[in-house]
Order: sequence, then C-alpha cells, then structure tokens
Amino acid sequence: MGKTGITPTRADNYAEWYQQVIRVADLAENAPVRGCMIIKPNGYRLWETIQAKLDAAFKATGHQNAYFPLFIPVKFLQKEAEHVAGFAKECAVVTHSRLQANEGGRLMPASPLEEPLIVRPTSETIIGEAFSRWVRSYRDLPLLINQWANVVRWEMRTRLFLRTSEFLWQEGHTAHATEAEAREETLRMLEVYRKIIEADLAIPTFVGEKPASERFPGAVATYTLEGMMQDRKALQLGTSHFLGQNFAKAMNIQFVDKDGQTQYAWTTSWGVTTRLVGALVMTHSDDDGLVLPPRIAHTHAVIVPVIHDEAQRSRLEDACETLRQRLLSQKADYPLHIEVDTRDIRGGDKRWQAIKKGACCMIEVGVKELEQSTVTVAWRDTIADKSTIPTEHFIETFVDGLAKLQTRLLERAKTYRDASVKRVTKADDFYDFFKHDGGFALAHWSEDAATEEKLKSDLKVTVRCFPQYYADERGGCLFTNKPDCPPAIFAKAY
Amino acid sequence: MGKTGITPTRADNYAEWYQQVIRVADLAENAPVRGCMIIKPNGYRLWETIQAKLDAAFKATGHQNAYFPLFIPVKFLQKEAEHVAGFAKECAVVTHSRLQANEGGRLMPASPLEEPLIVRPTSETIIGEAFSRWVRSYRDLPLLINQWANVVRWEMRTRLFLRTSEFLWQEGHTAHATEAEAREETLRMLEVYRKIIEADLAIPTFVGEKPASERFPGAVATYTLEGMMQDRKALQLGTSHFLGQNFAKAMNIQFVDKDGQTQYAWTTSWGVTTRLVGALVMTHSDDDGLVLPPRIAHTHAVIVPVIHDEAQRSRLEDACETLRQRLLSQKADYPLHIEVDTRDIRGGDKRWQAIKKGACCMIEVGVKELEQSTVTVAWRDTIADKSTIPTEHFIETFVDGLAKLQTRLLERAKTYRDASVKRVTKADDFYDFFKHDGGFALAHWSEDAATEEKLKSDLKVTVRCFPQYYADERGGCLFTNKPDCPPAIFAKAY
Repeated sequence: MGKTGITPTRADNYAEWYQQVIRVADLAENAPVRGCMIIKPNGYRLWETIQAKLDAAFKATGHQNAYFPLFIPVKFLQKEAEHVAGFAKECAVVTHSRLQANEGGRLMPASPLEEPLIVRPTSETIIGEAFSRWVRSYRDLPLLINQWANVVRWEMRTRLFLRTSEFLWQEGHTAHATEAEAREETLRMLEVYRKIIEADLAIPTFVGEKPASERFPGAVATYTLEGMMQDRKALQLGTSHFLGQNFAKAMNIQFVDKDGQTQYAWTTSWGVTTRLVGALVMTHSDDDGLVLPPRIAHTHAVIVPVIHDEAQRSRLEDACETLRQRLLSQKADYPLHIEVDTRDIRGGDKRWQAIKKGACCMIEVGVKELEQSTVTVAWRDTIADKSTIPTEHFIETFVDGLAKLQTRLLERAKTYRDASVKRVTKADDFYDFFKHDGGFALAHWSEDAATEEKLKSDLKVTVRCFPQYYADERGGCLFTNKPDCPPAIFAKAY
Repeated sequence: MGKTGITPTRADNYAEWYQQVIRVADLAENAPVRGCMIIKPNGYRLWETIQAKLDAAFKATGHQNAYFPLFIPVKFLQKEAEHVAGFAKECAVVTHSRLQANEGGRLMPASPLEEPLIVRPTSETIIGEAFSRWVRSYRDLPLLINQWANVVRWEMRTRLFLRTSEFLWQEGHTAHATEAEAREETLRMLEVYRKIIEADLAIPTFVGEKPASERFPGAVATYTLEGMMQDRKALQLGTSHFLGQNFAKAMNIQFVDKDGQTQYAWTTSWGVTTRLVGALVMTHSDDDGLVLPPRIAHTHAVIVPVIHDEAQRSRLEDACETLRQRLLSQKADYPLHIEVDTRDIRGGDKRWQAIKKGACCMIEVGVKELEQSTVTVAWRDTIADKSTIPTEHFIETFVDGLAKLQTRLLERAKTYRDASVKRVTKADDFYDFFKHDGGFALAHWSEDAATEEKLKSDLKVTVRCFPQYYADERGGCLFTNKPDCPPAIFAKAY
C-alpha cells in the first residue's frame, strides 16, 4: 500500500521486505561494526518480553541463573576436539590488553597477552571447568544453571536478528548423575521452548532430532525447533543438546556416586537467541509491516482522536485518555501497553505508523463516536475492516479480543505451514517440489551423507530434523531405498 | 566463631574476611581467566533483584532499553581525546577473526582484522554514533536510552565484585536540547540511584561532584555516590556524568532547533555495576558472614525442624512446610523466599549455613514448640538472641519484622558512617585522623592538584567528592588557605 514506506511485497522480494519491516517498525539496524546490530528500543522490548517468559519457565523447572566470563582461554576450547573444530573457524580473538600510539599517532595494539583469549561463541568449556570444581558428590547433582549473555561468532553473511556476529541469548548448562536424567532434561527444555514459542510467540514448530551432520559440535544428540517462514524457508528457533559424557570427560566433571564410585557426569546445553525476534517478524508480518501476537506485543492499542475542529481537541483527547485508562484497568494475564497518539500530525499518518509498528488494535474516536458512545476499531490482522461498536462493549471485550487475535495468528501460521508440508514418496516429486513452491518435504531417509551433499548442492536443501510427530513411522529411504527409515523434514533454511 | 568457616574477623584482616564471606555465602569466585569472576547463583540473585529495582525506576523516568555492539572500532574511541586517553591504557583488543593450528598443532590467531576492535569499556562513542543518526530535530529530544551489558577494563589488581576485568552494569545515555535539561537529567539519575541504594540496599551515601582530577574521561562534571565500608574506606557506588557537548561534537550529534538553527545536543551518561553486590557484603556483613537487607535478600527465612526423635520427623517437617506456606501468604511489597531445611545433616550445621548465607531470619520448630504453638526465632543481625513466641503472632508480624530489620541495617550503617566522619580544620589533625582510625575527613579545599598528589602519596587518601549536603558552606582551604572553598570529603578508597 506504500504508505508504510515498505516498497516490495512479500511475494516480490521477501528478503528486502523483511529488512524494510524491521526498519519502519524501528526494531533494529546494522551497526557500524561489521556483522553487528543495534537493537533499538522497540526491538529490545520484544526481547525483554520473551526473556521474561523464558526466565520464569527456567526457574519453574528448577534452574538458577549465574554469570561466567566473556573470555575463553584457547586451551579450554581445545579440550573437546569437535567443539574446537566447530568454533575456531569464526571467532573474535583477543590478543592485546592495551592500545598505544605509534609514531604516526595511530593507535596500535600493545601489551600482547601470553595466551590469546576468544570471545565466547558458547560456554560449554568455561562453564564445564566451573562444574568440574562445583561437583564432588551425587548430592551436588543435578546442577541446573542458565546464563543470559552475549556471544560472538564471526559470521560472513549477516542479517538483522537472524544471523549477526554478536547476538544475545540464554544458554542452559546442566549436569546429571545418569544418562536417563540428562536425556530427560534435554527434552524437557525443548518442550519448555516449544510451549512458549507456540503459546506466546504464536509460531507453530516441528520439533525433532537433527541428523548427525547438523549436531552441535561435541554433542551426542541435538534437538531442534523448526519454524516455517512466509517464504516457505525453515528457521531453526532453538536447540537442546544431549552432550553425553563428552564435555564431562573433556573438562573433568566427576562425582562420587551413592556406592562410592567415581563417575563422569552427563551434561546438556540448550539455547535460544534474539533470532526469535526475527522469527516473530517473518512469521506474522504482512505487506503493510509488523504484526505481533498480543502476548509479546509492545503496543496493544493505539487510540487516535479524530479532530476536524480544533475546538473539539481537548474534549476528544480527554475522552481518549479516559478510554485508555479504562482499557488498562481490564484484567489480562500480561501487562497492557496502550497509547493515545496526540501528536500534531495527520490522522492518516498516525494510522499508518500504528500499522507499521505492529500495534494489535487501532481505535479512532471522533465527535460522532463520542456523541454515540461508540469507538471505531480495527484489529491489526484485518486492518481494513473497521467497525464502529458501543464503547462499553468494546472495553468489556478488549482483552478477549486480544486473545482472539493471538489465536488467529497462530492458526493462520499453522494453516500456512501445513499447506506447505508435503509428503514425498518419489525422488522426482522431491525435486519438483523445491523447484516450484517449496516448503517442508517429509520423506523417509537413511541419513546417508551422499544425499545430504547432493541436495545441498542441487537445491540448497538441508535436513531440518526427524520430527517427533512422525517418530513412529518407518519406510524405505526416498534416496537409497534402505528400509525402515524414519521420516525427515527437508527444506531450504536460513 | 569459626563454625561458618570464616577465619579472620573484620578487625583482624578486613580484605581476607571479605573474600571469605563471599566464598562461604557462595556468591562468586575467581574465574580461570585473568581478572574475571564467576557470579554464582546466590550472587546473581542479588544482582537480579538490584537490576529489577533499577530497571523499573529507569522506565518510570521515561528511559527505554536498547542494545549496542560489544565491539568498538578504535577510530570511534579516538574521536574524544580525553576519552581515548582514559581507556586505551587498559582494554581488550580484538585483532583476529579465526584460530588456526600451526605446524606444532597449536592454535594461533589467524585472519587479522583490517582495523582492531576493542571490547567496550563503556559505550559513549558507539552509542553517540547511533544518536548522531537518530537525532535530527528538537522533536527527537530528549533521547533517553539505557543498556544492560558487560564491559571490560583490563584492571591490574582485581577483587571480587569491587574491581574485575569484566563486569556487568547498566549504562544510561541521554541527549537533550538544552544544557539545563541535561544537567537536570544528570542529577535526576543520581537521585534515582541514591534512593534505591539507601531504601533497598540500606547503604547510606554521600552524593556530590567529583573534583576535576576524578572526572570520567570526556565529562564536564561527574557526580558520585560514596559509601563507607566497615574498614572506613570509601567505595564509589555509582556515577552520573554531565558530558556537556563534548561527545555531541566528537560524534556529531546535531539537531535543528525550534528556530530552524542547527545545534549540538547536550548529553549525559550514568552507570552502576555488579560492584553494588560487593558494597552490600562490605556494608552489612558481620564476623559470622553475610547479612542482607530484606528488600534485596535472596532468602528471607530458613525454617529448621529440630528432630530429636525420628518418629516425629514427618510431623515436624509438615508443620514447617505449613508455616512456610503461611509466611509466604503474608502481604509484602517484594517476593518472599522462604526455605525449609529438611536435609539430613546436623541442626547446628543448618543453623550456621543459614547464618553464613545471610538468611534474614532463622526459625526453629521442635516438639516443644509444636505442642505450645510457638516458634523459636532469631533475626540475622542479632542472631544470638533467640526468642520463643506464639506462632500466630510471629506469622502476623513477620513482614513487619523484615521491615524492622531493613531499618535497623540502614540505621546501623548510618551510625557507623557518621561516627567516622570528622570535620577537620587543622592540617595536622588531618594526618592524625588517617594515621589512626581514618574514615571520611570533611575539609574545605581549593581543588589544587599539589594537595591531591601529596595526600595520595603520603596517606593514600583521595578526594571522594564535594558533598551536596554541605554545598552551601564555604571556608578557607585546609591546605592552601585560599578563602571561600567548599568542603570536600577525603578518604582512602577502593
């Protein structure tokens, strides 16, 4: 529609549309430091709300927050061979502890460190070292720790929220006395993520195990939550890793069990990142801009006084403020944020600004509404449908209206996703699917490396996971005909 | 008393006592990375509570959170001459983006960056660069931003919480259209800090301006909150800086005013850090260990069932759990945390563990108490005074009891502080004061550099601030006799 300042539609140019939605909604921008972003107040509020929900769920499942150093000595990283191989390729290396001007007056690194440090790309090793000192006996287990932190991975191609060199995340790290308990924890936290991502972020997911090729470096099993964006590409929303005894052995996390025997602990780690904000944007927004589920939204309603006669201004603005206070006093199970837009700009501009920033509901109050005790209302997902309804009724049903919007967004995303999941039983159909609309292809697969390589090179398609939902099914591999294989989800992905 | 595992008293060896209080309360430990610390769950809970109170106060004064990059290009830091001089001496310099094994298999830095980056020691320059793009017109002002982040300053001598190479903090950064507004903001945030530090952390402060020599690098004026620890040394608890137009000029933050003229903005910055946790420990703890003000405490009561006869165990444990639930249902304006210690260890050990971790209140329930409907109670600051009181009365007065403990701790700290503030009118007395008990010396001072140098070298004493409380007083400088000087506070400091 143009008035929001977003030039391409999703169909025209999805990548450019995404950048523009973020820009006009004032969520984030590229920083003048390569690969980094600045999360602006509107974007950070979304992250704070997501954080609060996750943090409460972590605490309710017995986890405690702690904080570990930003810097990891290279010798720590090296203790787990796959781990160092996975992260050494792209990391920020700190080599000096001072800057000093050279003869030309240019500041140069000075005072070299004895051993270089890397900025944490993840903290299994530095936290594992602490665990090795904290755990002595089975009585110290399980040890259930979470950290909110920034991490750095020197990504070559970056995109706001989805992939940046520095990002914010939480990383859970736990140690257990038995394999069964650690496996249970891995799946428990996957389920904690799934519930919040579906119930609050309104994003439907497929959860399941990653194939060996896509495991976290050093993990025995990696579980993932995969969402489908509106360009039918997959976005990995979070991961939970069963680390077996790999890191316990690398970092020497041992305990004396009930029988007096010394054993290695079993560990897990799990994380979600600021990428979830990008997932929100890509799942729900439309060609006019940001659309947010009410349980995460930073603005639940914008009230606009429609002023045609300056003499009416204060009366209309007062009525809007009264309406705001009454809406705020409605009982909701999350804090409501409601604005009255009294700025001295055109009503049409106010309307478009509320739309592009993703306000859940637009309310207009003019003289006619005031005289009739009505309000003119439009919800963000059906913004063209204005309806004028009695004010009292609107106030009473406002929180319910938000709940309905929340449900509609989840249902809409689910319908879109489900329409783009295709069960494929012939290899030819598989190629056709990805050469045309694409989406999630469900096919039995024998986990052979050759197929993975070929699909990546032919179609840029990767295996996203073996979905739990289809875990009981078995069939012949679509590519190798090997019998008794579980179904996997294949997709192009971010 | 020994049973807490703290060997020296405060009088014996204050520095060692401090380290041991932290260790036995399980708040933090030194990390295996030079100068860094690990904040353990008990310590992090204190920081989370402090964070929540500050964050609410920042939002109530119109500030919004955002997030800026960890890395600062050296050319940014260089734009403000005093600023770079202040921070180039001790900073973590990132020079490479990869590690690669050399022939000996040792991982070495690879892929040098075109320009080195430093890990932020503070963010005036990187945030100023963003402000220069965000501010166009007077309508964009004031711009009121806060960031919760980690920062790194390569400190040579570190001490848990008080001074570490990496620490957690918040940094407020604001831009204003006029000098008056920026000065007002600087003092407003100083007052926000003072209220929380006094009302919640129960730490009395002197607030005032720093002398020129102690200003933040690049600031026009730096204001500080100074607390007195139990060794009579000063601890700077937070600072608020009026930056004038220095950073606006360095980073080019300009706006068009109401008259269409282009002007530089006026900026401020202000911050407090995890050092506040150290301040809590040093202000309130006693020779037995941690003492915490209830408004910040992680544990408000520990209930210990006193079991002499195993047959009574379940009855006593049930009674303790019932008591816990009833205490939790009392109305307090902060969340209550109450534990029942049912571990299979000696009652005396439970008691000492509750003491050293700083539980506000210890409650014992044995058979005798149960039969008489009483509880035996001791508050942490007067832990030797046990009293047995009717259970109903205790439950009804529990929250009030916490409020009284909060008041007692502030009063005790204030009494201690006030007894160690001495008004000095003769230079000889000044030296005597610091050679004996020490504390805060209040003396008129002309802000001459020679005195500062001499006092630092003779006595390790520095000027902490010109306290607001005595702002109207004038008198002759104690050291130079120059007339009409304001009084300054002098002290040894952390």
